Amino acid sequence: MTADTRFAQAAAALGHAFDGELKIGGNYVPLLRDGDVVYISGQVPRVGSSVVVTGRVGEQVALAQAQHGAKVCAMRALALLQRELGSLDRVRQVLRVTVFTQSAATFTQQSEVADAASELLHEVLGDAGRHTRTSVGVYQLPKNASVELDLVAAVKP
Amino acid sequence: MTADTRFAQAAAALGHAFDGELKIGGNYVPLLRDGDVVYISGQVPRVGSSVVVTGRVGEQVALAQAQHGAKVCAMRALALLQRELGSLDRVRQVLRVTVFTQSAATFTQQSEVADAASELLHEVLGDAGRHTRTSVGVYQLPKNASVELDLVAAVKP
Amino acid sequence: MTADTRFAQAAAALGHAFDGELKIGGNYVPLLRDGDVVYISGQVPRVGSSVVVTGRVGEQVALAQAQHGAKVCAMRALALLQRELGSLDRVRQVLRVTVFTQSAATFTQQSEVADAASELLHEVLGDAGRHTRTSVGVYQLPKNASVELDLVAAVKP
Repeated sequence: MTADTRFAQAAAALGHAFDGELKIGGNYVPLLRDGDVVYISGQVPRVGSSVVVTGRVGEQVALAQAQHGAKVCAMRALALLQRELGSLDRVRQVLRVTVFTQSAATFTQQSEVADAASELLHEVLGDAGRHTRTSVGVYQLPKNASVELDLVAAVKP
Repeated sequence: MTADTRFAQAAAALGHAFDGELKIGGNYVPLLRDGDVVYISGQVPRVGSSVVVTGRVGEQVALAQAQHGAKVCAMRALALLQRELGSLDRVRQVLRVTVFTQSAATFTQQSEVADAASELLHEVLGDAGRHTRTSVGVYQLPKNASVELDLVAAVKP
Repeated sequence: MTADTRFAQAAAALGHAFDGELKIGGNYVPLLRDGDVVYISGQVPRVGSSVVVTGRVGEQVALAQAQHGAKVCAMRALALLQRELGSLDRVRQVLRVTVFTQSAATFTQQSEVADAASELLHEVLGDAGRHTRTSVGVYQLPKNASVELDLVAAVKP
């Protein structure tokens, strides 16, 4: 089974399509490739034109919702890679993932939020989806998103 | 027109000089080059010895002031690149920019703050200034700065 | 004196051993090498199974404690590099360090917290330990850690 098939299955499981425009807000680019390294801009859990998981995790937003948001962020990053590369099978290795969670003062499960994204990356990409990761709890995020994720990946020549 | 000329124009428009010492605080370096990749340490909007935009954005600090701060951060990063490379025309591509905004609890325009930096990078560097970006809202920053920006860039051989 | 000897001395000075399992929490890896670049996942000041510096810096946690935490994070990163490379003398250059401090609303000494990590990296690695750095104050961190640190380093061929 190809990584692209697994991506389609993951999208179906999440109940979201990732085939529309991957809108970003400002004067920058969603993806940039330099040699065999690809940088992906910070992704919030946007589907179409709306951010589907907003609010402070540990207050208005439960862990499970934040994990859903983290998966949507990861899927957006994968969708961007798929468009750039033609196929997700061309991802050699995800190198670095950073997950920012909009956190309540006493919410300390940022790693558990990020785990949802890590699992999805591994599920879709297999060993190429193993990565290093940093998870932190921030005070706010663009558009009141509950989660934001960025990543760096290496691609096959 | 060279990127260096555009840099000088942008400095004049901001009303700040970037020709003094680019002071940093601790036991690390402001810029490090490894092969054709240059890493720039996190820049706060410091001009000379004072940070010119401080305080929490969305409370004491308005969006326009924060955007001014983001531009000063970006100019400092450009000034560091210019000193290292001799000329900003030697920047091949800005790869990654991260913008941290000291945010009020309900301030969600971190992307709009970062847009000011993105626009300045594009204005000075042209296509080489297009970049991927992550914008988050943090709780505090060194010296009560309202904004902090770091970046990674590729240089021409 | 080798970097490994200096590492052992630094561990003794901190009063912690770094020879056990370097436990991490989720579905990701603590270190990933791609060519001559090594990425290290975000490290909290964990020794064995407990995080030794927790709480909000500037409220429950004093600057000196946070600095101790930052050193423990840096030692964990060095321990991971040492295991991967055989010897810390094979580190060519630390390229990028990011230090996240769980901060009180008015705590603005994030750079001073990070200085402790920067000094330790320089103490152990010498010139190879000089790096670019970004220091920010976040709202929460995994497991209520007071500090989290990640890094990217280049290794000798």
